[in-house]
Amino acid sequence: MPDEITPLRRVSHTALIDFVASAYRAAGIPEADARKAAELMAQSDISGADGHGVFRLPQYIRRIQTGGINTRPNIVVHRTAPGTALVDGDNGLGALVVSRAVETAIEIAGAQGVGWAGTRRGNHAGAAAVYAAMPVPHDMIGLYFAVGNANHLPPWGGVDMLLSTNPLAIAVPALEEPPLVLDMATTVAAYGKVKVAAQQGKTMPEGWMIDRLGRPLTDPNRSDDGFLLPIGGYKGAAMSLMFGLLAGTLNGAANGEDVVDFNKDDHTPTNTGQAICVLDIKRFAEPVAFKRQVDNVIRQLHGSALLPGFDRIRLPGEDRAARIAERTANGIPIPTSLRAALDKMAGELGITKLVG
Amino acid sequence: MPDEITPLRRVSHTALIDFVASAYRAAGIPEADARKAAELMAQSDISGADGHGVFRLPQYIRRIQTGGINTRPNIVVHRTAPGTALVDGDNGLGALVVSRAVETAIEIAGAQGVGWAGTRRGNHAGAAAVYAAMPVPHDMIGLYFAVGNANHLPPWGGVDMLLSTNPLAIAVPALEEPPLVLDMATTVAAYGKVKVAAQQGKTMPEGWMIDRLGRPLTDPNRSDDGFLLPIGGYKGAAMSLMFGLLAGTLNGAANGEDVVDFNKDDHTPTNTGQAICVLDIKRFAEPVAFKRQVDNVIRQLHGSALLPGFDRIRLPGEDRAARIAERTANGIPIPTSLRAALDKMAGELGITKLVG
Repeated sequence: MPDEITPLRRVSHTALIDFVASAYRAAGIPEADARKAAELMAQSDISGADGHGVFRLPQYIRRIQTGGINTRPNIVVHRTAPGTALVDGDNGLGALVVSRAVETAIEIAGAQGVGWAGTRRGNHAGAAAVYAAMPVPHDMIGLYFAVGNANHLPPWGGVDMLLSTNPLAIAVPALEEPPLVLDMATTVAAYGKVKVAAQQGKTMPEGWMIDRLGRPLTDPNRSDDGFLLPIGGYKGAAMSLMFGLLAGTLNGAANGEDVVDFNKDDHTPTNTGQAICVLDIKRFAEPVAFKRQVDNVIRQLHGSALLPGFDRIRLPGEDRAARIAERTANGIPIPTSLRAALDKMAGELGITKLVG
Repeated sequence: MPDEITPLRRVSHTALIDFVASAYRAAGIPEADARKAAELMAQSDISGADGHGVFRLPQYIRRIQTGGINTRPNIVVHRTAPGTALVDGDNGLGALVVSRAVETAIEIAGAQGVGWAGTRRGNHAGAAAVYAAMPVPHDMIGLYFAVGNANHLPPWGGVDMLLSTNPLAIAVPALEEPPLVLDMATTVAAYGKVKVAAQQGKTMPEGWMIDRLGRPLTDPNRSDDGFLLPIGGYKGAAMSLMFGLLAGTLNGAANGEDVVDFNKDDHTPTNTGQAICVLDIKRFAEPVAFKRQVDNVIRQLHGSALLPGFDRIRLPGEDRAARIAERTANGIPIPTSLRAALDKMAGELGITKLVG
């Protein structure tokens, strides 16, 4: 999201959910699904994953209106073994499909100790952290893998963009400290950051992208001339491939050249796949003792002396927890350009504008 | 391993296993365990993970002789739920402990679709790929996490080395192509590479290590003045933390400041932890069709046009498969310095030297 000089107008969490739900309803999604999908979308916004929340709503609505998303899917959970499930999303909203998978994996893990659920025929579902963190209140650990919805990454040494930024998210509860929540793309920068840099007329740092000759590409307006760089060179490209196999290929979902670029194509079903593994802590350790030990590790790391230029140790999930607290109290800031897009969409759908 | 000018003398896979087993027996390990641990160690060597195979044997023997490893462990597999197990290694050889965990997780996955097994009170076990790949012949997928045996990584922004190179390995079978096997440290370079650079009098590239002021550290003889860099900056440090929680803390094994530096301490039990998750492909897809689709993805990636400076696309596991084929045919090259160390150890143990 662009930095803006004047303080942004904020909306309450509740108002945001109501607005998103009303947009979904106006686009033809039944009430219960509209509300659930809105709550899941707003979890991205409340936790600071701004590029994955209401920012995506106009695009989702456009996809629905062009027939690219099924508003009345028959989402089927195939319980394929005592410990596994395969969820067929019937091209419904991604949040509805993935949340079914996570709910199923949590239920399975409660009985079996571990549960693994994959999705097929889903869609973009928002921030990975939202889903990885769903098991945490149950004293469970979540591991989440997803296939991204546009290929911006070639195999290592290549120039053909056959891989996506396929993310990994892992969430582990602590006792007094906020939960540790890793949510990372396998590329140095997510593609959304490139788009924001272009909007703002900024130069990208070296290391985000290279061009087809392997030279650093720092002009975000030239992003079509190059591609994202994976983290750790060949390692990040390899992770993207492996996560794509787990989240996509294994479930019969798109991976590799089958991935639909949902930024350029509003109509073709994306057949997006995700995978969630849930682990029940009590099958390994007494949960309170485990979470206390997680606190201990967190405090050890926080206690480290600092490198010059750093003012504190930031661990994965801390900023997320701080954002949730701050935005729950003060509301969610909506950038001016986003508000304009949402107002326009509201007008087209004939719904009340976002209040606040 | 150092590059050497003259061709190295090679030993057959069988001769290497016999030698390692005889060393373990001489150090007091019962016959069956000695052979199994030797076979697992030689899997690192045959597959090209030279820093994790017989290269480690003198160190392991030294640990056994100082009482740092239990030669007659009572390894107990606690089946804690239908889908999970916790393996207490009783401070036995790491390979014996982890292989029990993997065998258990494979058995569980056959019945439940997914199995997760953690280890505690184990030891360094060799290359992660060896264990992640064990499920592959069963048409299963392996995900492996481990806590490293020395902390060379601070939290991001810090200077206190509280994290290790905690690796991730994932293995997925293909049909006609070799299996895809990712095996990566969460640091740019493994610490063994630093030691090799020091032995060879070479300068390290920038990006491997920094000193305590954050400046690039390129002299490997000064490695005690700095620490390894994680891949992708804060992302790699966060992965190391999360993998350490999964493989260590969850199982009651060492993580954070509890990690024993096994290069500097031959005596204190390391309480090493690992975790393996095994997924049975047939619960998600018809295995031959799945493996054919993995082949398809591999071939798509191989078909990419190349960046200048690259002559082919290398995917994770390809070099490993090529090494296994070449070394099975021609034997395993043993560097002169390693052979001298093994000969010396053989003399001390009163066993026949490595033949070939």
